[in-house]
Amino acid sequence: MSFEKFNTDADVTAFARQHSPLFSDQDRLQVEEIGDGNINFVYRVFSDSNSLIVKQALPYIRVIGEGWPLSQDRIRIECEALKLAAKNCQSVVPEVYGFAAEQCAIVMQDIGAYGSLRSALIERQKLPLVAEGIGCFLADTLFYTSDLYLGSIEKKALVQQFINPDLCKISEEVFFWDPYCDHERNNVNGLLRSDAEQLWQDVVLKREVARLKAKFLNQAEALLHADLHSGSVFANQSGIKVIDPEFAFVGPIGFDIGLIIANYLLNLSGQANLPGEQTERSDYQQWLLASIETIWDTFDQRFRDHIQQETQEPSLKLPEYIDWYMQELLADSLGYAGTEMIRRTIGVAHVDDVESISDPKKRADSERLSLVLGQILIKDRAGFRNIDQLVVRVRELMYCR
Amino acid sequence: MSFEKFNTDADVTAFARQHSPLFSDQDRLQVEEIGDGNINFVYRVFSDSNSLIVKQALPYIRVIGEGWPLSQDRIRIECEALKLAAKNCQSVVPEVYGFAAEQCAIVMQDIGAYGSLRSALIERQKLPLVAEGIGCFLADTLFYTSDLYLGSIEKKALVQQFINPDLCKISEEVFFWDPYCDHERNNVNGLLRSDAEQLWQDVVLKREVARLKAKFLNQAEALLHADLHSGSVFANQSGIKVIDPEFAFVGPIGFDIGLIIANYLLNLSGQANLPGEQTERSDYQQWLLASIETIWDTFDQRFRDHIQQETQEPSLKLPEYIDWYMQELLADSLGYAGTEMIRRTIGVAHVDDVESISDPKKRADSERLSLVLGQILIKDRAGFRNIDQLVVRVRELMYCR
Repeated sequence: MSFEKFNTDADVTAFARQHSPLFSDQDRLQVEEIGDGNINFVYRVFSDSNSLIVKQALPYIRVIGEGWPLSQDRIRIECEALKLAAKNCQSVVPEVYGFAAEQCAIVMQDIGAYGSLRSALIERQKLPLVAEGIGCFLADTLFYTSDLYLGSIEKKALVQQFINPDLCKISEEVFFWDPYCDHERNNVNGLLRSDAEQLWQDVVLKREVARLKAKFLNQAEALLHADLHSGSVFANQSGIKVIDPEFAFVGPIGFDIGLIIANYLLNLSGQANLPGEQTERSDYQQWLLASIETIWDTFDQRFRDHIQQETQEPSLKLPEYIDWYMQELLADSLGYAGTEMIRRTIGVAHVDDVESISDPKKRADSERLSLVLGQILIKDRAGFRNIDQLVVRVRELMYCR
Repeated sequence: MSFEKFNTDADVTAFARQHSPLFSDQDRLQVEEIGDGNINFVYRVFSDSNSLIVKQALPYIRVIGEGWPLSQDRIRIECEALKLAAKNCQSVVPEVYGFAAEQCAIVMQDIGAYGSLRSALIERQKLPLVAEGIGCFLADTLFYTSDLYLGSIEKKALVQQFINPDLCKISEEVFFWDPYCDHERNNVNGLLRSDAEQLWQDVVLKREVARLKAKFLNQAEALLHADLHSGSVFANQSGIKVIDPEFAFVGPIGFDIGLIIANYLLNLSGQANLPGEQTERSDYQQWLLASIETIWDTFDQRFRDHIQQETQEPSLKLPEYIDWYMQELLADSLGYAGTEMIRRTIGVAHVDDVESISDPKKRADSERLSLVLGQILIKDRAGFRNIDQLVVRVRELMYCR
């Protein structure tokens, strides 16, 4: 394959000009690299009046190098997932201007007017439309790629289009295996060591994680974003943009819902020890719980509306089945939320919501809360009959500490 | 596409010669058509000393004609499924000698020394090695194509290789929809009409069938035969051969297990009213129940042995997970067995085990037994803790009539 990495700004601007109509020949273009730098290269290309993003996928993980090869097919998947999400959930993802398979690169809308939701949560911003926006994004992207909307022949074509083995394998390992044993990739706070060791002995927990893993491996319910943490959501006063669906594949719906809920709960754990006034932090924790309720309730209501109005499949639209199904979806979502909380606490990749707490003791306190919550979510997931019961349980846990 | 149906015996023999080394140029070959004639053309080609089978798939359903087109990709799928089964479960499927995509035709081993299991059951033959052979076939073909054996990247390639939308769609409709409403395709004995009408009103049953349908649509557990009724199993004193995997796709394991168990139970229902001595028929019913136990127990033991000896996946081989999983598999299997019993009783395609009972009243009696059993299997499937409990329940039902 004749793949060539962009080496100079001129490579990037030439590509940007070729694949979008945004710039005139007279525009003088500048380039800055803005990627977080882990996996891909991300460039912002701008003139005096316009800007766009160029994202290039290398045949390996950028920070590790050629020693960890990674299929470049992920950039095709990201591009096609963005286009499908744009169709199913208007204006919530950046518009794709162009794509070139040879260069493994996408040219897309610059969403610089939005900031990372993770940073907003750490700063305790109360952006008004985010939780509702996330609920709508989940309902729309998941419903329109599920059997509740697609015919079975279209659905199978979608499964085939988004088979994504390399990136699924990363999740299979970092979510469902590493954190449940003393794995060399893990990153465990020394003060949390005995908690982690206890967790590694818990066979009931491990059985339930195996069930969630089997669903992740097997259950092709809908096209997932599949990496929907709070760093993949960008937000401002007017709404959200969701980026980076390179992990997209047809999998269990609860995985997307669970990941974003977990990231709110991870922030809640962090707020117990982040800098700032106690009252302000407690107040924000309540706001986070209210946001989780809004995410689920918005999703639940909108998803059910879609079913009522658009599901043709006669056996699956039976109200008795839908009630059972939504209950199961809540349990799945909470289970996957638990796996995200645990893997972000003792696995390889932590989150700044907790990791930025500089005092190791205080950090361990927040980490312990995440770990306990994660285990409850996984083991008791089928017991929560609605999202309120989760909120009540989290409050109990916060007050009992 | 330049596809050409074989029109003359000479077309068939030329193809057979070209794609197998079985015949010498001196051999005089004869052709007989032996297919059941519903979907494909099946020919037996034979000399004085040798024989083989040629199977050709048309781009439509043979008995219906060009009005019901059907993807010819099914013959590639059948060929690849046969080869994979031959690798995973030696000598239980006919050997494939050759395949030509252009002609949509396979040349394979003649298994004329074996007879249809359905006929053997109707004649109350007690072939000694059949149930054990079926249990081994299930354990081997299902284990070696599941996540318990394959790495996740290989598994996803398998899913892609066996995406089979046209044939899955047929099953989705005839198993999981038609029999649960007053569908024009249904074939309901007039004397059973009120039983069927009652069934169509049962929302608990329909909810459970929707759950089984959703698993059939979504759950890519292992490569299924996916049409494992007793007409797909051929048997004699020395064992079995399994044929016709054109419906193969990666789906829920319980579907294969359930179908073959259901076909034993359908025969059991038939034996209540087939010709012959009462004692002989009752005795055979007990033999059928013992066979069902043998099928499950052989499968269960061998599948667990495979896991113990060959599963590398660390989270899925946890004993606590495996116990949960085998329990779930039994419930799935019984649920799918129930759908097969119901669809073979009031759906479009009946089975000779019951259909050959000429007196409509007697036939209705057997059909009613199938229908009741089918509903128990679906609604109570999670309550059966082992296969013995199923056998006890069936006996109760037989004696209480």
